[in-house]
Amino acid sequence: MKEIERRCLRALIGIVQNIYDQMKAGQVPELHIATRTKYNIEFNEESEVWVYGDRKSVRSAKTVKGAYRILKMTYVIGFLKEQLNLNKSSTLRELYYISEGWGAAKFEEQPESDRLVEDLEILTNFQREHFHIRPEEDGATVIGPLRVREETRRGVREIHCQDDVGEGGYQIPVNVDKIEFVDHDAKFVIAIETGGMRDRLVENGFDEKYDAIIVHLKGQPARSTRRLLRRLNTELNLPVVVFTDGDPWSYRIFASVAYGSIKSAHLSEYLATPAAQFVGIRPTDIVKYDLPADKLTEEDIKALNAILTDPRFDSEFWKKEVNLQLEINKKSEQQALAKYGLDYVTDVYLPERLSELGVI
Amino acid sequence: MKEIERRCLRALIGIVQNIYDQMKAGQVPELHIATRTKYNIEFNEESEVWVYGDRKSVRSAKTVKGAYRILKMTYVIGFLKEQLNLNKSSTLRELYYISEGWGAAKFEEQPESDRLVEDLEILTNFQREHFHIRPEEDGATVIGPLRVREETRRGVREIHCQDDVGEGGYQIPVNVDKIEFVDHDAKFVIAIETGGMRDRLVENGFDEKYDAIIVHLKGQPARSTRRLLRRLNTELNLPVVVFTDGDPWSYRIFASVAYGSIKSAHLSEYLATPAAQFVGIRPTDIVKYDLPADKLTEEDIKALNAILTDPRFDSEFWKKEVNLQLEINKKSEQQALAKYGLDYVTDVYLPERLSELGVI
Repeated sequence: MKEIERRCLRALIGIVQNIYDQMKAGQVPELHIATRTKYNIEFNEESEVWVYGDRKSVRSAKTVKGAYRILKMTYVIGFLKEQLNLNKSSTLRELYYISEGWGAAKFEEQPESDRLVEDLEILTNFQREHFHIRPEEDGATVIGPLRVREETRRGVREIHCQDDVGEGGYQIPVNVDKIEFVDHDAKFVIAIETGGMRDRLVENGFDEKYDAIIVHLKGQPARSTRRLLRRLNTELNLPVVVFTDGDPWSYRIFASVAYGSIKSAHLSEYLATPAAQFVGIRPTDIVKYDLPADKLTEEDIKALNAILTDPRFDSEFWKKEVNLQLEINKKSEQQALAKYGLDYVTDVYLPERLSELGVI
Repeated sequence: MKEIERRCLRALIGIVQNIYDQMKAGQVPELHIATRTKYNIEFNEESEVWVYGDRKSVRSAKTVKGAYRILKMTYVIGFLKEQLNLNKSSTLRELYYISEGWGAAKFEEQPESDRLVEDLEILTNFQREHFHIRPEEDGATVIGPLRVREETRRGVREIHCQDDVGEGGYQIPVNVDKIEFVDHDAKFVIAIETGGMRDRLVENGFDEKYDAIIVHLKGQPARSTRRLLRRLNTELNLPVVVFTDGDPWSYRIFASVAYGSIKSAHLSEYLATPAAQFVGIRPTDIVKYDLPADKLTEEDIKALNAILTDPRFDSEFWKKEVNLQLEINKKSEQQALAKYGLDYVTDVYLPERLSELGVI
């Protein structure tokens, strides 16, 4: 077992020890865990990311519901202990099914066990990757002038993300911390929402012409993808830009990269890239480039209004853009730039946006 | 331009020539295209796949709707001609947006342009890959004892799908025909529905122990994934087994691998693997292994009844299993096997199923 896993296991066992000690002292055991809502996230000036505030929820064995929660937590910790000792790993889904054999500690549905794993992350200050718990989600692919060293169960692999991969790129593993950056010739990183646009940049040789590392976000990015972007930004000191569609769902994709997500604010310092910049389609661009657009749906309008009260978007830039969008009542996709031909995005749009930002 | 692309371009221009000739002869132009419904697919004994039958739909300029269709088709063919001449490619989504500049030939929504590309595939007997039209969809990843050579725009890459890749595997490109199989030590191919199960087999070293090529289907498989499976089966003579959940949606995944899909029956001989065998969770297994299960929803029941009238599932095996499933009113996921521990699937379930089928 690695040192960090040993520490993680000690933290897990600490939780059970604490429950045990309370019971031994004749108390009804309880746990205090940060509340996970947008009313309990606050900006940490030092790390420049949004983290949970001071509001706590209490899980107490005084209620039947609370007692079950604590019972289930002790079973999960027992399972994780065995898993770490055997150097195995499992998915969130497998964990849910494994509980079938736990009698009264069986989970009713998967969101319950997922949430319990989050509780353990918050209580221990470790990440589920340290518990060897994997998600179902699929990590990003990378193409660009970067050489990585990946530690696999089959030995170490050194891979150059242009010379040693096909056009599909390098598929990042679930646990990005198994990767080491060996060397690179990149000037910046561009994270792209859709596969079609990612393929467009690869076909047009954008990574070669601009020394860019192209990362495919695949919609709302997996944790591993966000972790990779943060590491590229902080370890290699590379600027990160995020290229998405121009609608509220895409702004949330940007926000989860840049500021962290509300659901996992306890991990912001590990996953967020506060320096990330937005080069997605702005409402301004819909007007400026006269892009093909769709009308906003009712859900879009609701989501835009939610953004206006989301602390992560509390800036002049976002207020102006979101209000403009509500006014013009339009949204556009990044591929709408194809209106002006297949090369417009790499020959005109991105060079314009990136020089405005001083990235190229 | 490659010879096959030259022939493809000739076929596309032949369509326009035909329209032109009809008009020159004073006729109202029309086109005859195979009808794409489950009532017009039939089994081709020779190729053992389901293909379109003789029913044709007519697109005639006698109606305004038909005239627009023919107009749009000529514009698309003009665009494809230019694209092939420049050796560029584009996504289905980009094609839709490009039509913005075509005046009366502009597409109202993407399904319309997607369908037109299918029409062109049927009329020319070529595939959209030959037109250089790419989908948005994401191809599979591969891990196993197989060495491929991929022709990319940046030169040729030779990649061993165990030794030269990380744990994420080799990401197959959109156009699988750019890959050549160099050599392999595999005994069979296992295609897996979910990422969690794919990761389980990789972690447990299933590919090394059983000399298996593990392909991740990612739910309903992309065309490139189905093409890859067919090529592994026909060119390398490897058995292909498909490992999915035990519900009607997963049986359809198997069917689209083995028999081709109704929407693209014109491509069955290119995409289907009739020899593929099902090792997914059977209703029989839900009973036999006493698997954790959910109740069937109304949609599940509807889908199971549709399977009973789907010609692709017209066999004793499927009738028995589907009827059993309706009777027990249960469905199970492949990860439900975790009830018996993380190694049960690779130590017990798959070895049992694969030896029954004579694959190992």
